[in-house]
Amino acid sequence: MSELSGRSGVAIPTIKFYVREGLLAHGVLTSPNQAQYDDSHVERLRLIRALVEVGGLSVASVREVLAAMDRSGPEEVLSATHRAMAERAAVPAGSAAALRGSAAAPAGTAPAPKGGATAAEPSAGESELRAFLEGGGYTIRADNPGIAQAGRVLDAYLALGHDELVELLPEYLIAAIAVAQADRAVLDFVDGRQARVAAGMLGTVLGDALFAGLRQLAQEHVAEQHRRDSRRTPGEGRA
Amino acid sequence: MSELSGRSGVAIPTIKFYVREGLLAHGVLTSPNQAQYDDSHVERLRLIRALVEVGGLSVASVREVLAAMDRSGPEEVLSATHRAMAERAAVPAGSAAALRGSAAAPAGTAPAPKGGATAAEPSAGESELRAFLEGGGYTIRADNPGIAQAGRVLDAYLALGHDELVELLPEYLIAAIAVAQADRAVLDFVDGRQARVAAGMLGTVLGDALFAGLRQLAQEHVAEQHRRDSRRTPGEGRA
Repeated sequence: MSELSGRSGVAIPTIKFYVREGLLAHGVLTSPNQAQYDDSHVERLRLIRALVEVGGLSVASVREVLAAMDRSGPEEVLSATHRAMAERAAVPAGSAAALRGSAAAPAGTAPAPKGGATAAEPSAGESELRAFLEGGGYTIRADNPGIAQAGRVLDAYLALGHDELVELLPEYLIAAIAVAQADRAVLDFVDGRQARVAAGMLGTVLGDALFAGLRQLAQEHVAEQHRRDSRRTPGEGRA
Repeated sequence: MSELSGRSGVAIPTIKFYVREGLLAHGVLTSPNQAQYDDSHVERLRLIRALVEVGGLSVASVREVLAAMDRSGPEEVLSATHRAMAERAAVPAGSAAALRGSAAAPAGTAPAPKGGATAAEPSAGESELRAFLEGGGYTIRADNPGIAQAGRVLDAYLALGHDELVELLPEYLIAAIAVAQADRAVLDFVDGRQARVAAGMLGTVLGDALFAGLRQLAQEHVAEQHRRDSRRTPGEGRA
């Protein structure tokens, strides 16, 4: 185990913890107090670290995702991954109600339900999103966790009086489909079914942070393009 | 202040904290112990709550972003917002080095620098990204925080042996530009310079969570399309 720790850069107590939590398989016992670990253990440890440290998933979520990867098909892995990501979601359920303030939640009413994927009724943002999806002929299940997540963000915008975002949902979804197609295309570069499933899962978990970074670059690029265009238009000299 | 608390749904101690921290202006004193708050205070409070509760920004970051909004032009607001988002970034600096383990960091060398937008030299992922951007004629400053964030994610992939993602950077950046153009188009629906700046900032901060949700929908949609296509292809009957 100390060799595994050396090769993977993960401390021994952490490795023991992962074994105890069912994320990492036991080594093969070669003597009563000596177990052997191979490349598959090193690889699995790196995957666990990526999901926990870089992807920000909880240990329980990683266990569920890895179990799906070991035992189920790609669809099940994708669903498990989406569920895991919903748990780390940046937007807490009920936060839009807090933004709306007393207008939507008169003093004396019960507080908004906490811990939310199972909230009783869809929010305004979620309803808008569902209506939009139903009209578009998309092949998306009603329980995709992305609906609740995107719905909560729309909710927050609506609570702040910004309904213009709903108008632009088609543009955002078209871009999201382009991203999902690139996510899919990544897999064509990977050999072997198991490696492909792992790559798809990693791409799904880490892809949001990658895309968030690229979006910042793109925003600056687009802002600069607009400034150049407006400099060329007479009467709009100063942006 | 108790009326402001009632209208905004924010507790009085929290409001006092925001005033003390310089996020919210004092009310206009109407008597030695009576201050008047108006709609602008309610609106500002909602904005603060959105940035803190939904956007996940720190109080210090919100102060910086609001100061830019009150005193500077749209470019400065965008930069301040990007800096604030870099602080809450999900991908800690140096995490890829931990993934790479002992191969990249032999036992006995100094630990990787922590807390890292100011890391000494660009990582492999960041270098790949910079090289790609330089070749593409983009109008993006070298210090855009998105470069470090996306670079760290690429780093993590590279450490796990996935270099195929670098191949697909063009597709991802094209999609990111489409998103940035939609971000920009949102502003056309908003009246007034100050409101437009606020909308742009909110869109930047909350947009990542919205897009992450939509990406989950798009992934399911694309996976289902592929399954249908492969059902039609003889010899690939079972996906």
